[in-house]
Amino acid sequence: MHQRTVFFISDGTGITAETFGNAILAQFELKARHVRLPFVDTADKAYQAVRQINHTGVVDGNKPIVFTTLVNMEVLKVIQEGCQGMLLDMFGMFVNPLENELQIKSHHRIGRFSDASKSKEYQDRIEAINFSLAHDDGQSNRDLEQSDVILVGVSRSGKTPTSLYLAMQYGLKASNYPLIPEDFERRQLPPALVPHKAKIFGLTIQPERLSEIRNERRPNSKYASIENCRMEVSEAEAMMRRTGIRWLSTTTKSIEEISTTILQEIHPERLMY
Amino acid sequence: MHQRTVFFISDGTGITAETFGNAILAQFELKARHVRLPFVDTADKAYQAVRQINHTGVVDGNKPIVFTTLVNMEVLKVIQEGCQGMLLDMFGMFVNPLENELQIKSHHRIGRFSDASKSKEYQDRIEAINFSLAHDDGQSNRDLEQSDVILVGVSRSGKTPTSLYLAMQYGLKASNYPLIPEDFERRQLPPALVPHKAKIFGLTIQPERLSEIRNERRPNSKYASIENCRMEVSEAEAMMRRTGIRWLSTTTKSIEEISTTILQEIHPERLMY
Repeated sequence: MHQRTVFFISDGTGITAETFGNAILAQFELKARHVRLPFVDTADKAYQAVRQINHTGVVDGNKPIVFTTLVNMEVLKVIQEGCQGMLLDMFGMFVNPLENELQIKSHHRIGRFSDASKSKEYQDRIEAINFSLAHDDGQSNRDLEQSDVILVGVSRSGKTPTSLYLAMQYGLKASNYPLIPEDFERRQLPPALVPHKAKIFGLTIQPERLSEIRNERRPNSKYASIENCRMEVSEAEAMMRRTGIRWLSTTTKSIEEISTTILQEIHPERLMY
Repeated sequence: MHQRTVFFISDGTGITAETFGNAILAQFELKARHVRLPFVDTADKAYQAVRQINHTGVVDGNKPIVFTTLVNMEVLKVIQEGCQGMLLDMFGMFVNPLENELQIKSHHRIGRFSDASKSKEYQDRIEAINFSLAHDDGQSNRDLEQSDVILVGVSRSGKTPTSLYLAMQYGLKASNYPLIPEDFERRQLPPALVPHKAKIFGLTIQPERLSEIRNERRPNSKYASIENCRMEVSEAEAMMRRTGIRWLSTTTKSIEEISTTILQEIHPERLMY
């Protein structure tokens, strides 16, 4: 079988090109080699990219697929004129129809991450990451009222990766709190959380899966045993029902799916625009 | 001025639709209200979306812009037939030309994150996040050799958010290590890192910016003073030069730009596919 190569070319990081290109390619049963060409922001670099693409096409015996998110028209022109791959100009495809509908010209500004470091939005995102790290696993009650979201659940139910994803992707200050035997005995949420009930979201997980995950960390421990996992999950779910907080099971869900559902349920003020 | 609303509709999380849509919209001077409609995976939900879009168009006095990443053809058809907004079908635009070029049919599988939780790639990503957290700020030398990337730099030069981004976005095990006065006195990299030089990447930052960032944390401290920041940065840069590791300044760069540059320089084996 011939090899197929996919290029992602951008005058910025190429992350948008690759994210979107991967979503398209996921629609096909195709094993392809991926090549990222970020920061292609001069005609010289564009000529170099064209040479690399065309050479690859000859070696593969197959037209390379070339996804581009280029706003520099000079760079795009070099690639359009020289590239023998299948060119998918992702910006061009949408920008022109939008210019007509909006009746404004696009300004060909490079990269959504460029100069980002100076923007308020970017600073907020970094602050959210630091906040979420400092409020991981109930480490601190300080400034808890600043949280946009507070996740609760038993140890290893998916709270930490979800909190960090919410911070990194959406700039949300996401705290998380473990539910532990003391909480189950008291039959109440951790006291520090009670004033913030509207922001609380619960994560649960199938006991069998939880036991697997915990066994990787601490093999053959009581902590990881299926009996203990069943008990903790059942107590945690009973508490979530009793206190009326919203919750979901993370067992078959990715952090992206969990986060999207949380946003739909909690509606953090910070995201209203 | 009339209001403009942008919808992002997906049968999955809608994250791809929104990421790409935002990159397109960033090309325009346009203040728009964003509405995410994730998990639109039945005809019923599609009719509901159509009603919401058309109602919004009437209230705004302006056609809504509607970005879709829909693989369910029944859902897409409902929206295509009923929606009075400007429809930008992001998958349709690219999938048909690719079917012709690849000579294979797309399989209309929903969402790149769906069922992700069971995949090896997804498990690796979660493991990478846990690894990076456990190896933040030189916390642990355990399993250091498993790192794909090791970041070094003075405190607050951007190591932690970059490590977490590399883990979350690319599934890379990214450790990070602070450079501290003891290292400067010894004029050497932290001893634990020496065997892993090929994976080390340095981050530096302008002393003025560093002092600003540190002042937010510990106002008027010696730690945050411009003299101390100048000294630390100058020592750290001298060490990076002397030891011959690759490095960059994070002062005006976003974590996405920093991460992209690191990947270009370090070429982690895990990303070769």
